[in-house]
This record gives sequence, C-alpha cells and structure tokens, in this order.
Amino acid sequence: MLEVKSVNEVYDILEREFADICPESETVDICSACGRILAQDVLSHEDIPAFHRSSVDGYAVCAADTFGAGEAAPAQLSFSGEIRMGEKPAFPLERGHTVYIPTGGELPEGADAVVMVEYSEDLGDGYIYLGKAAAPGNNMVFKGDDIRAGARVFPRGKRLRPQDIGVLAALGVTSVPVKKRIRVGILSTGDEVVDIHESPAGAQVRDINSYSLYAGLLAYGAEPVLYGIIRDRFECMRETALKAAGECDVVLISGGSSVGSRDETLRVIASLGEPGVLVHGIAVKPGKPTILARIGNKAVFGLPGHPASAYFIFHLFVLRLLDRVNRVNEPKHYPIPARMSKNYPSNHGREEYVPVRLTHDGTCAVASPVFGKSGLITLLSSADGYVRVERGTEGLKAGATVEVIPFGRYGGGGI
Amino acid sequence: MLEVKSVNEVYDILEREFADICPESETVDICSACGRILAQDVLSHEDIPAFHRSSVDGYAVCAADTFGAGEAAPAQLSFSGEIRMGEKPAFPLERGHTVYIPTGGELPEGADAVVMVEYSEDLGDGYIYLGKAAAPGNNMVFKGDDIRAGARVFPRGKRLRPQDIGVLAALGVTSVPVKKRIRVGILSTGDEVVDIHESPAGAQVRDINSYSLYAGLLAYGAEPVLYGIIRDRFECMRETALKAAGECDVVLISGGSSVGSRDETLRVIASLGEPGVLVHGIAVKPGKPTILARIGNKAVFGLPGHPASAYFIFHLFVLRLLDRVNRVNEPKHYPIPARMSKNYPSNHGREEYVPVRLTHDGTCAVASPVFGKSGLITLLSSADGYVRVERGTEGLKAGATVEVIPFGRYGGGGI
Repeated sequence: MLEVKSVNEVYDILEREFADICPESETVDICSACGRILAQDVLSHEDIPAFHRSSVDGYAVCAADTFGAGEAAPAQLSFSGEIRMGEKPAFPLERGHTVYIPTGGELPEGADAVVMVEYSEDLGDGYIYLGKAAAPGNNMVFKGDDIRAGARVFPRGKRLRPQDIGVLAALGVTSVPVKKRIRVGILSTGDEVVDIHESPAGAQVRDINSYSLYAGLLAYGAEPVLYGIIRDRFECMRETALKAAGECDVVLISGGSSVGSRDETLRVIASLGEPGVLVHGIAVKPGKPTILARIGNKAVFGLPGHPASAYFIFHLFVLRLLDRVNRVNEPKHYPIPARMSKNYPSNHGREEYVPVRLTHDGTCAVASPVFGKSGLITLLSSADGYVRVERGTEGLKAGATVEVIPFGRYGGGGI
Repeated sequence: MLEVKSVNEVYDILEREFADICPESETVDICSACGRILAQDVLSHEDIPAFHRSSVDGYAVCAADTFGAGEAAPAQLSFSGEIRMGEKPAFPLERGHTVYIPTGGELPEGADAVVMVEYSEDLGDGYIYLGKAAAPGNNMVFKGDDIRAGARVFPRGKRLRPQDIGVLAALGVTSVPVKKRIRVGILSTGDEVVDIHESPAGAQVRDINSYSLYAGLLAYGAEPVLYGIIRDRFECMRETALKAAGECDVVLISGGSSVGSRDETLRVIASLGEPGVLVHGIAVKPGKPTILARIGNKAVFGLPGHPASAYFIFHLFVLRLLDRVNRVNEPKHYPIPARMSKNYPSNHGREEYVPVRLTHDGTCAVASPVFGKSGLITLLSSADGYVRVERGTEGLKAGATVEVIPFGRYGGGGI
C-alpha cells in the first residue's frame, strides 16, 4: 500500500515518469489536420506576402510625391495605367507618376504607399489628383511583413485550430506531420455491471464509464478501444489488461466500487509488469481510490467505479498524461472567474473539485455548485465546469471569486 | 444597394428569416454521438438508480435502530449476513438486525440508511456494534433519486458532451436522434487566387479561405464541401454557386478582394433566386462587405476575401446561422473577463472585433490586442480570442475590464 499522494505530487509524477514516452508521428492532409498536434515545428520557406501588396483600392505612389498634399492642394500625378490582380506590374513606377491598384494587387517597383481611391480625383486630363498625403508603407503590406522566409510559424506541440489551417494553406503546406492518435484501452470491472445492450437484472447497473470515457477520448483526439466488462476475477482481469496493454498505449480500468473489486484491480495492475504502481490513492475528492502505474512504456490507470468520480479523474489526470506524452505546449482551457452563488462547505483534508453551473448576473459570471449525493450520475451532466477547493480550507464562501474550469461545449471544438 | 446593417440587425435577420429551416435528423450510436445536436428530447423510461443503493461499504440498517448510538454507546444489531453486488437481497431487514453491504449494493427492504464500515465493530458474537447514529437516507441513494422515470433528461437542441453520453448509457439509450450534419459548400473567387497545390506565379496568392472555412466547419460539426476557385466571371460564378446551392444547405462564397470581384459576387448572389439578398454590408470591422441572402430554403453568404475578415465573419455570423437552424439552445462560449494590457483606439463608427492574446498576471486574465496591418493572415493564428468594441466608442482603455470571446483550443472539443 503506497502513501496517498496530493494532486500536485501526481502531476509531478506524470511530468517526470512519462517524459520518455513519445507517440510516433504521421503525415496528414491539412483538411484533416484540425485538432491534431504538430509533431514538428512548421517553418516558412517563403515570404508572406511574396510581394509588396496593396491593402486597399487606390493609387500606388512614391510617398514623397504626396508630401504636403491635402484637400485644398492635391498632389498632381501622371496616370500610368492600372495594375491587374494576380499579375506582376509590367514596369516600375516613375517619380511623379501613379497607377491604379486594386486591394491585393502588387505594388510596382518604386512605389512605397497607396492612397485610397476615396481621396483621388480623375478629371480625364491624364493626371490623378490625390487629396491626401501618404507616408511610406501606408495602405500596403511589405513583402515578408506577415511571415518571413525561414521563420518558425508554429512550434511542435501546438494543437491546430481552423485559423492555423489557413496559415498552412497560405504557406503552401498541404500536409503536416502530427502525433499519431494515442490508443487508449478501456476496461470496466464489477460483477454488478452489465453492458448497455443488456437489461440489468436484480441489482445490476449498466456500464456507464466505458461510454463516457470513450466519448471523452474521441473528443480529446485519442483512439479509444473498448474491451468491455471484465468479471472481478484476478485471472480474467489480468488477461484482458495484458491484452489491452499490448495493443494500446494507455489502459484505463474503471473499477468495481466495492472494496473487494478495488483490491482486485490493484493486485491486477501491480502484477502487469515493471516499474509498476506509482500512485495508489490521491488526496482528492472525488476520486481518492485512483491508481496510476507504468508498465514498460505504457501507462495504466485504475479509475474509481463511480461515473462522476471516474470522469473527474479522467479530466484531471488522464488528459494531462495524454498532453504530456503528446508534448502539448499550451494551456488546456481558460479558467473563468466567477462569483460563488452560495456557500460550499468542505473540510475533508483533500483537495476537492466541485461541479458548478455557470450563469451570468449581468455584471459577472456566477458559479452555482451542483449539489447532490455522490452516487448521482447526473452531477456532471448538469455542470458547466468545476471549481477547486484547496486542501485544508473550509470550503468556498458565497460571494467569493473562484476560477471555473469549463467543460468544453462545442462539438467539434477548436472553434 | 441595401443599407449597411448593424451586427444586431443581422442577428435579428438570422433569427427571423431562417426560422423555418430545420435540418433532418438521423439516429446514431452513442459511441459517435458526442458533439452532435439532439433532434428530440431524451426521456427516461426508468428510475435511476433502479433500486435503493448504498454509496459506501458498510452496514444497512433501519435508521431508527441507531438513534442515540455513539462511540461510547454503540448500537448493537444482530448480524444477518451480507448483500452481494448485483444481486437482489434475498430477504427484508428485520428491526434490530443489520447486513453488510458493499458500495453500489441494493438495500434490503426495511433498510433506510447505511453506517460506514469505519464505525462498526464485529466482535464475533453474532452482533455488529455501530458507533454512529444514522438518519434515514444516510450513505445511500433512493430509487429514482438521480433520474425519475418519465423525466426529460436532455432537451432537443442540446449538444452532447462526453459526460452526457455517460448518462445515456446509464439509461440504456444505445442510439439517439440527432440533427444531420449541415452541408456547407465553399467557393473561393478571385482571379489572383490559386489552389494550394499550385505554385503562385506573378502576384498570385494561395487560396486560404477554403481551408480555414473547411476546418472551421468540420470543427463545428458541419459537412463542408469544397467547390474550388472560381474565376471572377459572372457565368462561371453563377453556375458553380447554383450547383453548390443545389447540393448544400448553406453556401459560402469568399470574395475576391478587389471592388470588381466584390461587385460580381453581389450580382451573382442576387441572381440565384428568391427571396434574395437580405444583407449587403455590415457595420462591423473587419468584414464590412459581407453579403447574406436566402435562396429558397438555402442560405448564401458572401464573405470578405481577406482571410482574417472572412474567418471573423464566419465566427460571428455563419456559426450563428448553423446554431439557429440546428435549434441549439445553449451558449456557444463563456466569455472570459480580462484586463486590457494597453489602449486600443477605435473610432470607425462600426462595431469592431479585436483579436487578443490571453495571459494571466497572477491575479486576473490579461488581454493584449494583436496589432498588425489588416492584410496579415497571422492576426488570427496568433490570437486566443477576441474582444468587442462597441460602435460609437473611442476604443478600449488600458486597464479596462473586457470580455474575451475565446477561440476554441481543444482539438476534439466538448471536453
């Protein structure tokens, strides 16, 4: 029996003990790269834009030719024609001359600013009259202003969002190296648990954890594999756990909730191989009986049997492990400051995570704890996120400002 | 030429003019339902839990038998055996008796509380000594406490999260009716635009919008269809737009950025059918030249050609339309209160959306505007979210509290 660890101790263990595990990478088309994690830095091989580009419809000028111009005394410049979209200007701009240029057009050599068409007058006398002075660089983007050739555009470990896919397209990067999806095996144990396709008899209950974990892993971007419900017999459990550890990178065993099956899960995990059990018990509520082991280069979690507890532990620790081995280098979520709607007493000597609903009172966000007996499976489905109560405090006072860690909302995410 | 509309006027138009459009539904297995939108309410056909269930390992009692018990004067109850996980208790509990019950076990008839095993003593004399009084309901969950038979568990329009999938599993709901993915056609126009698989020549640029929109639509949970790059000729554009409107529910035409191609896009959209153009121009920065039309029961957007503008308009208006027709009944994101790191001047007479980076100074979130010329494609990829500057104000002051609308972070989202 190992000592119960604090949440931060477990975070340190995840950081330290799994540092050498690194999933392989694969190359995917950018159309299927959103949400994936870059396995390498992305460098630019060219300047973006690739040419001095106008940001407006107007007249390309040598800025110095417009100095001092104004509504009352417009600059008078010889009209030398029109730049066409997508085409290189045929000739350089001479001093004292101007050309019409559309938004996105390439400035001719010699031009260093654009005056918006709104400030121009064309009297048909071969001159364009510009009623506004331009400083060099006005209304244009210089070659390489956006991205310089050779620059690191995105670091490895970045999770690609839709707008990042746009940047890859701009660079002509049609496929990118990303981390392979981590395979995660899911086992449920408990003699009282039956599959959702069966009808529970007597005091049986349906397998919930397999399905919420499956969905959570898909949503993260992992590849979940269901191994079904395993009877609480050492040999059965060990055989399936070994098979899962052989086929997957991470194994989650959600425990039967009785003492007997909890003990059996620990014995099974301890028997799988070296280095073995790293954590047995975390000073956290819910989820105290959590187990964490490393078997070869695989991670094995023993999760609590209770669905809300199992999902919390998944959120707090399993996702953190996945981010660790994927080398994700950005925060998982933005905490939302909110005011507690009522007191939440707590004095367990364990760090506690409290599911909350989020509303808004017109001035600030309000967090209302979702109360309910710990046996309730609807605790999490009625919550928008959760708040942390530090160990050794007496809970949260009504009116206190807390940081809510939001559960994701948006289906596809990244948006 | 229609009048330029305010952002709220456009929201009203989306709400009102597309109220009758409703995508069909389809039934999917709960393993692939995460992120999908419920097409019907989910009702429970049974009580959860289906029996009075213990939340701890302990002794089931008739609470009244323990009244007055304490460490000094334990209640002495006849030991009547053990409840086994998943099995119905074989006999009711008599007054003055107790049975051992594991976490998750079914309470026998007559029992109305559980005393934790920590407070019990078994001296081997046929009695169990309980050093703590229990009130009725202690350490147990009553039948139906979590979900009552007949209750509406989730409303239609809800986007399913992993923990919601767990609740469906608990109810034995193995598949659910969800909205079909909305098909959205994507067209790029602009004579200067080339596909990302080609090398830009002269002053050509690569097609960015098709790919950021494609990724954004996938991330939302829609079904994007690429129609490629269409030359800025009325007949070409009209033909492809009609084809897309025939095959898809929504069509996005991201415009060439020159005045000429903008005008052509408007003419094309106006020619597609009735009722036609609803919005031409929105008082918003970026994204003023946006077009919105309804053609039969399809929506058509003309998006700005500039990638950052196009993506903002997608985020602000296209996603809102998708949520509208999908009848999504929950907020899209939680705004994050943050302190402005510096002044952001603004006096355009248009509502402005400013991309920001989010950091944390130890006390609160800090929003730093991502400055850059409007031609830059990296504006959005370096932003974590955006803030709104109201029309007619002079911008945002350093130190002011703003609400940041975060871009999604997490790949699969919903987590």
